[in-house]
Amino acid sequence: MNASAQPRSSGVYPSPSTPLSDLLAELARTATQRDREGGTAKRERDLIRASGLLRLSTPVELGGLGANWIEIFGVVRTLATVDSSLAHLFAFHHLMIATLQFFGSEEQARELMTTSVRENWFWGNALNPKDERLRLLGKGEALRLEGEKSFCSGASDSDRLIVSALDEEGKLRVAAIPTRREGVRVVDDWNNMGQRQTDSGTVIFSAVHVASEELLISPGPLGSPFATLRPCLAQLILVSIYVGIARGALNEARAYVQALPEAAGARVGADPFVLRTVGELWAQTVASEALVEAASKRFDEAWRRGQAITPEERGTLAIEISSAKAVSARAALDVSTRIFDVMGARATAERYRLDRFWRNARTHTLHDPLDQKLKEIGDWALNGAYPTPSFYS
Amino acid sequence: MNASAQPRSSGVYPSPSTPLSDLLAELARTATQRDREGGTAKRERDLIRASGLLRLSTPVELGGLGANWIEIFGVVRTLATVDSSLAHLFAFHHLMIATLQFFGSEEQARELMTTSVRENWFWGNALNPKDERLRLLGKGEALRLEGEKSFCSGASDSDRLIVSALDEEGKLRVAAIPTRREGVRVVDDWNNMGQRQTDSGTVIFSAVHVASEELLISPGPLGSPFATLRPCLAQLILVSIYVGIARGALNEARAYVQALPEAAGARVGADPFVLRTVGELWAQTVASEALVEAASKRFDEAWRRGQAITPEERGTLAIEISSAKAVSARAALDVSTRIFDVMGARATAERYRLDRFWRNARTHTLHDPLDQKLKEIGDWALNGAYPTPSFYS
Amino acid sequence: MNASAQPRSSGVYPSPSTPLSDLLAELARTATQRDREGGTAKRERDLIRASGLLRLSTPVELGGLGANWIEIFGVVRTLATVDSSLAHLFAFHHLMIATLQFFGSEEQARELMTTSVRENWFWGNALNPKDERLRLLGKGEALRLEGEKSFCSGASDSDRLIVSALDEEGKLRVAAIPTRREGVRVVDDWNNMGQRQTDSGTVIFSAVHVASEELLISPGPLGSPFATLRPCLAQLILVSIYVGIARGALNEARAYVQALPEAAGARVGADPFVLRTVGELWAQTVASEALVEAASKRFDEAWRRGQAITPEERGTLAIEISSAKAVSARAALDVSTRIFDVMGARATAERYRLDRFWRNARTHTLHDPLDQKLKEIGDWALNGAYPTPSFYS
Amino acid sequence: MNASAQPRSSGVYPSPSTPLSDLLAELARTATQRDREGGTAKRERDLIRASGLLRLSTPVELGGLGANWIEIFGVVRTLATVDSSLAHLFAFHHLMIATLQFFGSEEQARELMTTSVRENWFWGNALNPKDERLRLLGKGEALRLEGEKSFCSGASDSDRLIVSALDEEGKLRVAAIPTRREGVRVVDDWNNMGQRQTDSGTVIFSAVHVASEELLISPGPLGSPFATLRPCLAQLILVSIYVGIARGALNEARAYVQALPEAAGARVGADPFVLRTVGELWAQTVASEALVEAASKRFDEAWRRGQAITPEERGTLAIEISSAKAVSARAALDVSTRIFDVMGARATAERYRLDRFWRNARTHTLHDPLDQKLKEIGDWALNGAYPTPSFYS
Repeated sequence: MNASAQPRSSGVYPSPSTPLSDLLAELARTATQRDREGGTAKRERDLIRASGLLRLSTPVELGGLGANWIEIFGVVRTLATVDSSLAHLFAFHHLMIATLQFFGSEEQARELMTTSVRENWFWGNALNPKDERLRLLGKGEALRLEGEKSFCSGASDSDRLIVSALDEEGKLRVAAIPTRREGVRVVDDWNNMGQRQTDSGTVIFSAVHVASEELLISPGPLGSPFATLRPCLAQLILVSIYVGIARGALNEARAYVQALPEAAGARVGADPFVLRTVGELWAQTVASEALVEAASKRFDEAWRRGQAITPEERGTLAIEISSAKAVSARAALDVSTRIFDVMGARATAERYRLDRFWRNARTHTLHDPLDQKLKEIGDWALNGAYPTPSFYS
Repeated sequence: MNASAQPRSSGVYPSPSTPLSDLLAELARTATQRDREGGTAKRERDLIRASGLLRLSTPVELGGLGANWIEIFGVVRTLATVDSSLAHLFAFHHLMIATLQFFGSEEQARELMTTSVRENWFWGNALNPKDERLRLLGKGEALRLEGEKSFCSGASDSDRLIVSALDEEGKLRVAAIPTRREGVRVVDDWNNMGQRQTDSGTVIFSAVHVASEELLISPGPLGSPFATLRPCLAQLILVSIYVGIARGALNEARAYVQALPEAAGARVGADPFVLRTVGELWAQTVASEALVEAASKRFDEAWRRGQAITPEERGTLAIEISSAKAVSARAALDVSTRIFDVMGARATAERYRLDRFWRNARTHTLHDPLDQKLKEIGDWALNGAYPTPSFYS
Repeated sequence: MNASAQPRSSGVYPSPSTPLSDLLAELARTATQRDREGGTAKRERDLIRASGLLRLSTPVELGGLGANWIEIFGVVRTLATVDSSLAHLFAFHHLMIATLQFFGSEEQARELMTTSVRENWFWGNALNPKDERLRLLGKGEALRLEGEKSFCSGASDSDRLIVSALDEEGKLRVAAIPTRREGVRVVDDWNNMGQRQTDSGTVIFSAVHVASEELLISPGPLGSPFATLRPCLAQLILVSIYVGIARGALNEARAYVQALPEAAGARVGADPFVLRTVGELWAQTVASEALVEAASKRFDEAWRRGQAITPEERGTLAIEISSAKAVSARAALDVSTRIFDVMGARATAERYRLDRFWRNARTHTLHDPLDQKLKEIGDWALNGAYPTPSFYS
Repeated sequence: MNASAQPRSSGVYPSPSTPLSDLLAELARTATQRDREGGTAKRERDLIRASGLLRLSTPVELGGLGANWIEIFGVVRTLATVDSSLAHLFAFHHLMIATLQFFGSEEQARELMTTSVRENWFWGNALNPKDERLRLLGKGEALRLEGEKSFCSGASDSDRLIVSALDEEGKLRVAAIPTRREGVRVVDDWNNMGQRQTDSGTVIFSAVHVASEELLISPGPLGSPFATLRPCLAQLILVSIYVGIARGALNEARAYVQALPEAAGARVGADPFVLRTVGELWAQTVASEALVEAASKRFDEAWRRGQAITPEERGTLAIEISSAKAVSARAALDVSTRIFDVMGARATAERYRLDRFWRNARTHTLHDPLDQKLKEIGDWALNGAYPTPSFYS
């Protein structure tokens, strides 16, 4: 890989664990500045590393914190209230850890998780089946990756990558490899209006060797009923972030009004139209929260069902996540737009960068089309048909 | 009371208990016809009596079924999917039973509940503080009610009434009296576009004697922190019914499409726009359900806290109910309007009376202005101020 | 035809012409009652006959009033504010008159319009290409109609019908025939939740003779660029009625509040949330009006272009009408729902039947799916593709 | 004034007139870059100067182009499709020219307009009655301005300013003075998330001399029925810009899709959900356009009525503008949000800066609270009360 694309160490890592509240306070303090700068948040990534939370989802017996998914999604949502980019990277790290368990053999997963905890690896994503430009060439032990992938969230500054590629027979293969392996180049080309520090740019693979034991083939991508939970998890991460953005925007609006000079604050706080607007945004937000919490609980149950999960249970979960997504995507967009009606014109000053909530919401809610999700819900509600598991359903 | 306003017995009562599912099936079978006819649903009220569910909320030790509020609201919501008028009457009966416990002394409540179970009383409502035309005149034992009340849901065919009136000092008093007492005249004047069988008409009181022990004065209306849960319960009943209407409308739309001739049904079921619409309605509905379930759970906790409840706990509950109300009132109106986009023009035939969901939703969501609830939420979210307990907050 | 399906004469007709304002006042006075009764509005149909307005769209040289389409749509919209059923019948009469000119030869159109004015015919509709059950059998002079048609607005009590049927080669044919011809049976089976007096029921044809000169074959259905304006006219009638319903609902809400007892009226009129709601409904309504007025103007221009009209001009007109339809269908539904937030719970009393605006809007906006129209607009806006003329585009 | 706050000349001015289409093309070419940089658009301001369009609203007999207001608002809207900041500055220049005529004597207005045309002055705004920090001290000829003003759109690089200040008796006074007069300091402190080049920053006045003939006192601010049209004009400028933003966003979305690689473009262009979304945005946009065009026409009529204008005519105009504002503010926000659902995730790349439409819309729609406008409409629609003329009504 191209070392120059790797931000230099900030010196924070390794360091003693930082509890979540300290991490939150620090992320909040610098969120505006970080949104202004874009690029890889090396320092904050190292703070996350130092917090110990990268092992949150790993079982206790493998050295992890053994949190259940209700707790994990709760952390993701809370992080997203202050920085939805870092929340995304953090959540996708855990999606990668889960991917080992979904697609790999038990031994693989156990071994990789154990090492990951020990080395405090931060995982990045290069699994993006819609982008078919990356190929896995060769056979047996002589495997190599050739091509490129876009939208590789968290690849920059990562230690390990989960990569998807089509093999010579056109079959989707997934592997777990070191980011610093020769031939991997993480391009620093993510510069977008929102989610500015997700580093969701391009990774170029030039004759990158893949060992056969690095392939996740038992059962492989979506290769078992349990493995089809992977897209459910990915979608529920999106939802959690949307919900966090809505709540974060509302928090900021309240903080902004409370920090107004007394006369102005009193005027705003007594305006019936302002209060009514806040009431609408609050109701939208808590509706999203209720749905994401219910879906998180159901995901956790499904996860614990493991290989015993039935298509009906998986289908019900997928529909529940899609419903939460529909409601929360709108909440994130509406709340991040309408908080300005509460705060007024002066809140548009660049120094606050309060538009970042809308920019983040708008960017992230484009991950895959919401109308398709609504259609899937409708197909279930009207025809009793569950969505066919795929990387987006 | 004016006996002629009492519908004649349908001959169903007394009879062995009918389980909820039987009751639902029977109510569903005749809902259209009942909506067409309006007036007092004597036969169905007797079915409810016969079902044993009037004692649902009464503690087991007093002969009741001892259901918790999560269960009770669940039954209300389920009833509302097929008949939101009868669901309202049923829920208000339990509101009256709870009112004995909120406003009366422990002894009063215990005695009245015991008798109510034994006699299988169906309670009606004449508690409506905004209508100040009813007076409680006299002192000591020589008390009498003089005047009238509007919006007295469930007074027709009821056995007992909870009545509010202003006494000679302008203080609000609440009493529990027999509906058939001399001087009480339940007027059969409720004929509205929706909630057509809630009998929410006028009751006229002419020199109606009230015994001092019939007054609920310990602690009296909103007379203790626990007593201020009464409006929370009333509001949560409204919310439960809105949610039931939304779900019921969605159920009907699905049933309608599934009953279409095969070609038409297949066409509708494959239309991406139709499916997308169903998806939206489903998401709105489950969001309402998630909120009403969470609020039901919290109400149940508050109820069990009893006299120990704090203003903060009561305030949090009130805000949670208001949020659920905002989301579910819109869901009920939107879903009941948009199901027709799913079903198509032929579903407007009078024989289906599928507009009843909208008519019921629209009538019931006017109980008190939603904008005021949004303002209260805003006052909490922005200023940290809980709503001041009143009969509407 | 089956004479018994024809309501008896009300004795009003023939009588001297009634100006529009008299007609409106009379329709307004009895609108509630008429909505309650449903069925054929024989008396009011005769009032329309007596008003002279059935000849509104016919050129002056043929005995008509020679109104342009801006004026005609204006009358339709105004009628719809008080009675959207009769407005529909009135507008469809003029659609039939225009159909003679769109599909028939100049001579046919001239002759039929001349007679129509002289005999004061009220035309009804049996042109409904989606319903393929009606056949035109035979050849040459031995033509007969066999089968039935649904959604035949205004067939009851009509004097002439425009009928569509498939001939033996599966080709769509359109004819103008007397409603009272032997074998025509107008079934009185329209009983729907809204648009209750449009008589949009079934017509059964049993060996109904059709003379070859009654066929409109030069150019025939959609047989020329000019003829493709026919669906534009039909759609613009729908839009005009939606807009009239929105305005009518708003009018009623204002009248209702102004008629409240002084204290209640003052309270409502000073409530900031009520005023805000009225403001929203007003803005939605005037937006609809602006669009329907612009589209009416453009339709009038297109009509006057006659055979010279180009596909681009027709396409632009169709898109403009679809945009107006999207905005006004929502306005009609929203305004007719939300006026109750202005008027309050007492406005749900059956004696007002104020739900009729929603019932009418909801029924009429199902004529054809709005999502298809939005898709057509999108195809134009994104791809520059005009809708392919059809009976619904 | 502080010369250093004046951007240096770009060398474009003076130059031969540039027609509107050339100006538009040039503004479009560099809009993204300008949004990135913020600050005073000196080069483009000089292009506007060079275009000759600063004299657009001045009567022909005074050397102007004598455009009517329908034409002027048309130009504003068109400019706003490509750059809503410059459109605002351009429109406010004409608002200042009109302010001379609203508040000043005929002689003053004539003389200032004549010189303005001759010198090709670009006018800026320092009239902001809500900010009461600026005082006009002294009497007779010894008048001086002391204090500051915020939100002074277009003050940077302007030649003349219209300033409002409270005199020693607390009365609002308005004057027209040179921007470069001693003691005037235009602070370069406007750096906001949207409308980034409107230079709506602070102007500080330190002992700035004002000649008595520079005061606009016949009739003075809002000093005659005609003078009360000034806020109508200001509001209609806002509306025109909102409408331009909506249309501009839609234009960009189409251009973006049309520039996609063929396969991607074909896929997007055939997606029924995408087309439906575009249809919705189009309908919202044309509704806004219809309303702003109607309001522009009515404003032009009101302007030509001059001193003969009645309160009813002024009131009707104000309501019409408010309705247009309500519809177009929402259109601008919705369209600028939802175009991304059409374009997809890749359109969030920073190099396009397509979020600028939302940022501009969101910033500009906070000028004054929309809910107040809705309330004013409601007061008119329900109570027949016209808004009391003020600088915001």
